[in-house]
Amino acid sequence: MSGKSFWGFIKDPIYGYIRLTETEKRIIDTAPVQRLRRIRQLSGAEYVYPAATHTRFEHVLGTMYLAGVVAENLPVSLGEDDKRAVKVAALLHDVGHAPFSHLFEPILQKYVGKTHEDMSTSIILDSELSGVLKQEGLDPNFISKLCVGKRNDSKRAYLDQIIRSSVDVDKMDFVLRDSYHTGAGYGGVDIFRLIYTMDVLNGNLAVDVTALSTLESFILARLESFRTIYFHKTSRGAQIMLLKALEYAKDDLCITKLGSVDEYLALDDEAVWAILRGNARSRGIIEDLNRRKLIKCAYEKTFFVKDEFLSSLFTKDTVRVRMEEEIAHKAKVAVEDVNIDLPSLPSVPYHSAAELEPMGIPIFYRGPNGEKLPQKISEVSKIVDVLMAYMNIIRVYTVEQNRDQVQRAAASVLGESALSSLVSY
Amino acid sequence: MSGKSFWGFIKDPIYGYIRLTETEKRIIDTAPVQRLRRIRQLSGAEYVYPAATHTRFEHVLGTMYLAGVVAENLPVSLGEDDKRAVKVAALLHDVGHAPFSHLFEPILQKYVGKTHEDMSTSIILDSELSGVLKQEGLDPNFISKLCVGKRNDSKRAYLDQIIRSSVDVDKMDFVLRDSYHTGAGYGGVDIFRLIYTMDVLNGNLAVDVTALSTLESFILARLESFRTIYFHKTSRGAQIMLLKALEYAKDDLCITKLGSVDEYLALDDEAVWAILRGNARSRGIIEDLNRRKLIKCAYEKTFFVKDEFLSSLFTKDTVRVRMEEEIAHKAKVAVEDVNIDLPSLPSVPYHSAAELEPMGIPIFYRGPNGEKLPQKISEVSKIVDVLMAYMNIIRVYTVEQNRDQVQRAAASVLGESALSSLVSY
Amino acid sequence: MSGKSFWGFIKDPIYGYIRLTETEKRIIDTAPVQRLRRIRQLSGAEYVYPAATHTRFEHVLGTMYLAGVVAENLPVSLGEDDKRAVKVAALLHDVGHAPFSHLFEPILQKYVGKTHEDMSTSIILDSELSGVLKQEGLDPNFISKLCVGKRNDSKRAYLDQIIRSSVDVDKMDFVLRDSYHTGAGYGGVDIFRLIYTMDVLNGNLAVDVTALSTLESFILARLESFRTIYFHKTSRGAQIMLLKALEYAKDDLCITKLGSVDEYLALDDEAVWAILRGNARSRGIIEDLNRRKLIKCAYEKTFFVKDEFLSSLFTKDTVRVRMEEEIAHKAKVAVEDVNIDLPSLPSVPYHSAAELEPMGIPIFYRGPNGEKLPQKISEVSKIVDVLMAYMNIIRVYTVEQNRDQVQRAAASVLGESALSSLVSY
Amino acid sequence: MSGKSFWGFIKDPIYGYIRLTETEKRIIDTAPVQRLRRIRQLSGAEYVYPAATHTRFEHVLGTMYLAGVVAENLPVSLGEDDKRAVKVAALLHDVGHAPFSHLFEPILQKYVGKTHEDMSTSIILDSELSGVLKQEGLDPNFISKLCVGKRNDSKRAYLDQIIRSSVDVDKMDFVLRDSYHTGAGYGGVDIFRLIYTMDVLNGNLAVDVTALSTLESFILARLESFRTIYFHKTSRGAQIMLLKALEYAKDDLCITKLGSVDEYLALDDEAVWAILRGNARSRGIIEDLNRRKLIKCAYEKTFFVKDEFLSSLFTKDTVRVRMEEEIAHKAKVAVEDVNIDLPSLPSVPYHSAAELEPMGIPIFYRGPNGEKLPQKISEVSKIVDVLMAYMNIIRVYTVEQNRDQVQRAAASVLGESALSSLVSY
Repeated sequence: MSGKSFWGFIKDPIYGYIRLTETEKRIIDTAPVQRLRRIRQLSGAEYVYPAATHTRFEHVLGTMYLAGVVAENLPVSLGEDDKRAVKVAALLHDVGHAPFSHLFEPILQKYVGKTHEDMSTSIILDSELSGVLKQEGLDPNFISKLCVGKRNDSKRAYLDQIIRSSVDVDKMDFVLRDSYHTGAGYGGVDIFRLIYTMDVLNGNLAVDVTALSTLESFILARLESFRTIYFHKTSRGAQIMLLKALEYAKDDLCITKLGSVDEYLALDDEAVWAILRGNARSRGIIEDLNRRKLIKCAYEKTFFVKDEFLSSLFTKDTVRVRMEEEIAHKAKVAVEDVNIDLPSLPSVPYHSAAELEPMGIPIFYRGPNGEKLPQKISEVSKIVDVLMAYMNIIRVYTVEQNRDQVQRAAASVLGESALSSLVSY
Repeated sequence: MSGKSFWGFIKDPIYGYIRLTETEKRIIDTAPVQRLRRIRQLSGAEYVYPAATHTRFEHVLGTMYLAGVVAENLPVSLGEDDKRAVKVAALLHDVGHAPFSHLFEPILQKYVGKTHEDMSTSIILDSELSGVLKQEGLDPNFISKLCVGKRNDSKRAYLDQIIRSSVDVDKMDFVLRDSYHTGAGYGGVDIFRLIYTMDVLNGNLAVDVTALSTLESFILARLESFRTIYFHKTSRGAQIMLLKALEYAKDDLCITKLGSVDEYLALDDEAVWAILRGNARSRGIIEDLNRRKLIKCAYEKTFFVKDEFLSSLFTKDTVRVRMEEEIAHKAKVAVEDVNIDLPSLPSVPYHSAAELEPMGIPIFYRGPNGEKLPQKISEVSKIVDVLMAYMNIIRVYTVEQNRDQVQRAAASVLGESALSSLVSY
Repeated sequence: MSGKSFWGFIKDPIYGYIRLTETEKRIIDTAPVQRLRRIRQLSGAEYVYPAATHTRFEHVLGTMYLAGVVAENLPVSLGEDDKRAVKVAALLHDVGHAPFSHLFEPILQKYVGKTHEDMSTSIILDSELSGVLKQEGLDPNFISKLCVGKRNDSKRAYLDQIIRSSVDVDKMDFVLRDSYHTGAGYGGVDIFRLIYTMDVLNGNLAVDVTALSTLESFILARLESFRTIYFHKTSRGAQIMLLKALEYAKDDLCITKLGSVDEYLALDDEAVWAILRGNARSRGIIEDLNRRKLIKCAYEKTFFVKDEFLSSLFTKDTVRVRMEEEIAHKAKVAVEDVNIDLPSLPSVPYHSAAELEPMGIPIFYRGPNGEKLPQKISEVSKIVDVLMAYMNIIRVYTVEQNRDQVQRAAASVLGESALSSLVSY
Repeated sequence: MSGKSFWGFIKDPIYGYIRLTETEKRIIDTAPVQRLRRIRQLSGAEYVYPAATHTRFEHVLGTMYLAGVVAENLPVSLGEDDKRAVKVAALLHDVGHAPFSHLFEPILQKYVGKTHEDMSTSIILDSELSGVLKQEGLDPNFISKLCVGKRNDSKRAYLDQIIRSSVDVDKMDFVLRDSYHTGAGYGGVDIFRLIYTMDVLNGNLAVDVTALSTLESFILARLESFRTIYFHKTSRGAQIMLLKALEYAKDDLCITKLGSVDEYLALDDEAVWAILRGNARSRGIIEDLNRRKLIKCAYEKTFFVKDEFLSSLFTKDTVRVRMEEEIAHKAKVAVEDVNIDLPSLPSVPYHSAAELEPMGIPIFYRGPNGEKLPQKISEVSKIVDVLMAYMNIIRVYTVEQNRDQVQRAAASVLGESALSSLVSY
């Protein structure tokens, strides 16, 4: 099939020249993939990191590239068809993202009852992508599951894990790419060491213990990306505002009655922004965002919860709303001017963060005769062990003029805390 | 004045931490500057370099930073007030850009009779910026001229030249930044060598002959940026389409009857995109762009013209239109499907390219007693000498299905030529 | 004093242009500082990382540069004299290094009874440096203590801590520089974030809690540098060989009867290499090193010891020697062909590693009124907390032909273990 | 043959992981290749760029890597055997270098009558390399010619040209690597664009006209490397001193009576340095170098000569000596204290610089039917055209205390000139 032959290169700032086959070029040229050019990777982050304007399109190209590198280098020899499929699945893994990427996720779940992974599957099956895949000799059904890591094939789970696992190419790409474009400066992770030492252990993708320190760096870099980019105090303020605007304008967005995949695909950052600018309730928020008049963080506290149940209890909507009311009452401000943000892991906009617990990373070492012997990561890495329980953040936001009252009220309701910032914008 | 004190840092992927004063922070927080977040630096380039989504906002911060470095390092000691003013002027030098940056420029000139530099001046004088500048003890009139290099003060022309000359901080920033975000790979220019060796010669900013090879690299990098990014065959195709869409929708844009600076400032990439999506004539073009269905280059020829008069004659609109008609007739296609593009230097979207001739770069060397002696650049640099005359490109674009006919027709009208491409998207 | 005026720049691959004053230039031009050009930063590492040929000279320039950045940016305003002194002390902090840097350290301690820090102090006081410092208005006594962090001035301990503490500019420079030159790929630490947020708390240098994740990255990067460079299995093999050669030739080196600072300064990598090549006993080892015929690691085990006493007990020379004998006996090989290496922290060649425990890092956060409030690092960072106990490595080396026997013997004496390696040379 | 199978990786700071086969590993482990670890790439440059301590070993690994990339990507499909051979030849292309790389070259030519390329050929045929190559199924004779580009096979000249031509992988590697390790900052050349667009035209390696601007950047970067590194005023001073020391100690070096390849191979930087330290005449120079007491440039002039004959006439030894005498006489200093340096291209230490004229670069463009059509580079690139004649530099060096007299004398003999320097060390 001619689709397997070389088409040309795309220039990427991270990996240099990305080599495309005819098949990949045809899939890239479909409307669902081109739409990703108009969906920013890190909505909200640009208010802190002016350079963070990169899009999902760039990210999926990078993810496809890395999937190819893993597929070529795994000691378990993948067939040509599997290599092709893994690359295409990586290319399509984010095709279901809503505008503003993860920011839209709660809206999507609340009103459509779906995640962006569900949407990826639907779009592959029900858009023009399905026809193009078939034409290129690829099975849309297979790709639609592989791209979200849900093939349920325990013998070759590693195929899915290349795209979706604790050390998948998706995360590798965003660790490097988000650091590059923000300039945040944590991205010095030698992901190729991870890739070149990977192997398969009982059907699962596994990390060689010799790359343990690289794995730890990778996990730390991810955490740092959450703390310094995705959960950045100021960036979260912008995200909360935008989320509120989306709620206000949800009828104009027709989100509650999305009939078809095409209606969903018509939504991109620019289209939604235009709708939010046009809606009477959300317009003011957009004007504030455009002027960078952001709500301010009046209170912040970080705490560690080992127990996931406790953490999830705390982040329940009902608990959050009651605290907002209490603080508003104490501060004598309108309740809609008090926004509590709880980026604990199960509720963060970065949905996949739920698997931050790296418990699932198979590790192996080589026995005296070269055989692969499984090892528990918590036994070889104290660092990973301690990270298995992870911090929750509680923040209270309000408009600038109320900051002092809300700060005092929050302190009296939630306990004294600290706020400190110099490097940020 | 407290405005001079340190406010904090912004993180930039090129220079790391950019230090802001209170004054700078207040100016950055105005609507005209924040609007630059919504104007892409390289409209059209993202169709070739997926990562090229950076904005003017990022660029003006970088330009301000570099202006500060030059101001601190010039052996001629600038006073604190001049240093402040030069940095603020650099920050504001692009505040007048229309949506899609240079792409909009011909529209602006045709219907409003202004360049983006004229608009920068107007906006500084007539928007909220004027008040903020005064509050911070800065003269809006002075800044509005300094930022476009038009103070006309021959004794201290170097102040203007920091921001606008052949080796200004504007060009330095875009050489580094556009290379960084596209990954185009020509940006390895040691601009700090240029900056640290600069001096003032008879009131003009001058380059030390010891940095000559760096200057040559800088000039070459600029040319390469033109050839590989701004004038890239595919990127120009997208630009031609977008320009046509702007023409079609010009009434909806109200561009012909812009009453105030505020109406102009209301236009940003997202607002214009929404208008173009809504207009019946331009909608189809936007849909094509969104799917990356671009017009194709059927013919390309590069030629060198020493004589500026000859070059400008050739790029006259009337000449261009006649050639389009002739080719369309020969190819038996509709005349609107033949687009001739002539990125010769006087007519390029990059208006400031008109000064590409680096004739105006004062060079000096140190005499036996350390005195600065002027030198003609053409005498010390053969490379710069030859670049003083520069290439013109002629390209004929058409829709994909007409490519073959148009190619033959163009060849018979304009002479045989060549097309070659492997690395591009 | 003219010495304070600007002299010129040195180009550094990490920081770009390093600005020198006349004073700094004069100190750099002394023989003790120039000698550092001939002492490699990472002796032994070049057998694994071919590019790791950089020298102490480059490192001390970088350290001086960073000391200047810290001194300029600390909110506690240092006087001009203190800033000058801190930079000069940073420049001179490694002037006492023996050939092959840390590799020579055990020899120095065993036969001279001194550390390289002791030597730094001596050299500043007793070489030409003393005169030059005085000429430049600097107190040799003050500098000789400051440069090793031993001024014992609790009110302004931060001056010493800039150069010598858990987050000093020495470590910052080597984290970046060693990663750069080896290509080891862990060096993406945003040290400027650490620097720009640092403050003084009760006389001590303290880290702002907002930079906590950067601090964790920094500590992790240091650990990774130990594991992937300094303690690299193959690199340690080369180091063990070189150390043995030094022991064999110690009389030719006259190390046991070093009379003066000048005799010590006459030793550099090249001089010592020539001596080792000339000595009958060490010559063979040098020939093997020159051909990269390295001893092989037959056994490796990593274990964690919370208790420092236990760790130091284990690494006692007597214990080590007994184990070597037992393994040699079991493997039926000569005892000199069994080398046990125990890079646990108190005994590593990187002597300063002894403070790897980051217990001493003062952390602060800002209270409601901007006041600095101290925090315990172990309470805010689980990662640092777990790292406070740190791994020991036990390795058994032997010549290639004995590897199998020694491997079995070591396993039976020390317990089963694992060896695994793909990425290395 | 098992030698073709994958052995492992070496980490390189430029290209990341370099993949080695068993064969390559065995060749790397020979004494002649390991010796390159002890020969610096840029002897003399470290006095200006402290970080420039990298070695030929690192460079040949990089060159081998790039040769592999070219071999894999040429549209003309090379067989597996040719690919293997080209990589091995690239690995061995510099195996004949004398200590201090190009610095030793004039000595080698004067007393041995050979170039380092001749030595590469000899060493491959007459050292242990010959046996290892045969064992791995490679023909030493073939490799010994291929590695210096002298196979004389016009049908497949491109094989040689990969390693030795105007755009060979040797030059590509040193442009990137020397810039990286010095930090000189000109190395932003997108060599992979050159590589990925290369093709074969009538048996010769040819550059696609679409990569023309990259080719120009590459040529400029090479020139800049000559001007800012290899011919740097201060670095040349150190080189002249070292060359003089080599002349003084030539009997101790036994250079005039080198009997065998092994005697030659015994010479490396460290061995020669020890000899120079030991020789009564050269010792003083080495002591000066070790203290960085360098001779000073008292006079410098750059001029352009189109005519190669004129240039070579001027750089004749006899002319040089007469001028030295005249200046010494006028300045009333000893003639041995006047050193004229003439780095014009035929006489530079960088012997291969002789081909700097890029006349030999075949260029092609694609005709209407995809056919490759040859083009003259001088017709498509004005920049290359102008560079075909190239500058000569004339410099007069002397010891510091004579600088003023020699400066005046040189000016009266050679005409007024200029000296200017700020950024350097």
